[in-house]
Amino acid sequence: MEQAIGVFDSGVGGLTVVREIMRQLPNENVIYFGDTARVPYGSKSKQTVLKYSKQIVRFLRTKNVKAIVFACNTASALALEEMRAEIDIPVIGVVKPGAKMAADMTQTKSVGIIGTEGTIKSGIYTEYIRRLDPAVTVVGKACPLFVPLVEEGLLEDRITDDMVERYLSELKPYNVDALVLGCTHYPLLMNPIKRYMGEGVTLVNPAYETAKGLKEILKTKDMLNGKSDKVSYDFYVSDGVDSFKAFANEVLPVNVDEVKVVDIESY
Amino acid sequence: MEQAIGVFDSGVGGLTVVREIMRQLPNENVIYFGDTARVPYGSKSKQTVLKYSKQIVRFLRTKNVKAIVFACNTASALALEEMRAEIDIPVIGVVKPGAKMAADMTQTKSVGIIGTEGTIKSGIYTEYIRRLDPAVTVVGKACPLFVPLVEEGLLEDRITDDMVERYLSELKPYNVDALVLGCTHYPLLMNPIKRYMGEGVTLVNPAYETAKGLKEILKTKDMLNGKSDKVSYDFYVSDGVDSFKAFANEVLPVNVDEVKVVDIESY
Repeated sequence: MEQAIGVFDSGVGGLTVVREIMRQLPNENVIYFGDTARVPYGSKSKQTVLKYSKQIVRFLRTKNVKAIVFACNTASALALEEMRAEIDIPVIGVVKPGAKMAADMTQTKSVGIIGTEGTIKSGIYTEYIRRLDPAVTVVGKACPLFVPLVEEGLLEDRITDDMVERYLSELKPYNVDALVLGCTHYPLLMNPIKRYMGEGVTLVNPAYETAKGLKEILKTKDMLNGKSDKVSYDFYVSDGVDSFKAFANEVLPVNVDEVKVVDIESY
Repeated sequence: MEQAIGVFDSGVGGLTVVREIMRQLPNENVIYFGDTARVPYGSKSKQTVLKYSKQIVRFLRTKNVKAIVFACNTASALALEEMRAEIDIPVIGVVKPGAKMAADMTQTKSVGIIGTEGTIKSGIYTEYIRRLDPAVTVVGKACPLFVPLVEEGLLEDRITDDMVERYLSELKPYNVDALVLGCTHYPLLMNPIKRYMGEGVTLVNPAYETAKGLKEILKTKDMLNGKSDKVSYDFYVSDGVDSFKAFANEVLPVNVDEVKVVDIESY
């Protein structure tokens, strides 16, 4: 099936998921929407995240996508399950694949989750992980400053190290050996987080597992695209084309030269 | 005139302006709208801030307000002048009063402005100050992490001190003696900023000057409310009633027990 895969996020973070899709599913066309006007979702109510996610799915459906990826942890946590019944094409979020990976990995039976306030408060990672293995203790910690630190470019910085220590010291007593990076921005803080948590803790990046899960679903349903000479990647945002383009060109292995603005409130 | 004054901001920050209005105009009724669903405005494009401001003004007009205060530096910087002609009641922003105060205060003829990316990039403070006194040098610095630090409650914290130093060290060589807190959240960082800048630098809080300017306008136009026994304060937001209420009750001298949610996109 040549139809594209629709991927959305509250902003630029979901591009880390697109990168994994490009790697693992190189024949697939992708249409990405980043809600850069209304970013961040992490501090918004369930009702608002649900409303925004519905508008975005309506927009993606106008592009005739064959599957939809919720590449945003907050939207996956607060909106996906409620919307699943209304969507008659495959949908996948980043939470379930990340939860599965963490449950599979942990030996100490103690898993840490870091994410936005919305994701952590929802308790959804805990729910999924304990459904897979009720013996696992799950410790969640919201890290609201990580996204602004990433967006300010302070990836390797003393202030970021301080903030990492401040947030993650709460996880230390729990002897976690797997830590889910439950927000698409966080893989960009992989280094300072790894330094603080130490070698004994595996950092789980749900983006990788999500692309893998998507591939399995499309294969099972015989919806993969055949070998293709020209794969297309289309990018839409609700605001700020220039900063999106700059970020995309840093994160993605392809050149992003066109980004279109969508009036998402009208969907 | 009993009609209320309409005040809006991208979120909770504008409540510092409401506080000043309550102090300086105790007989006035106030209707406040905080765009908590779409906060922050600081990193959004002019086009988007203009669109959101227009929706909010349309909403406030349905409440029959007699004047409108743009209690958000970014909206004042990017949208107010373009909208002024369309609004047939008095409108006032926070930028002009803050600029005037800074121009009046400076002896070294060197003024610093800190604010969001949108406010600083607009160059509007520089424009207003230099219109008042072309001899003044204006140095602007965007401080994107200040709002998340305030919202995380780190008002007195080593990490905030570090970030203050990081941002404001760029202003030091300019010998500024007045620094405009060009974002409604920043007055809450008054202490760390004062500590770093030293006693010789006056911190200008546009909220105070804005309420003063509003009072003058209403007096000139004979639109002040007469002595009143019961003054009403009404609060509307686009999302997250609980966190707004908590913040309002910390900042305001009155008890805020009711906050209503508005579907602002429909205006």
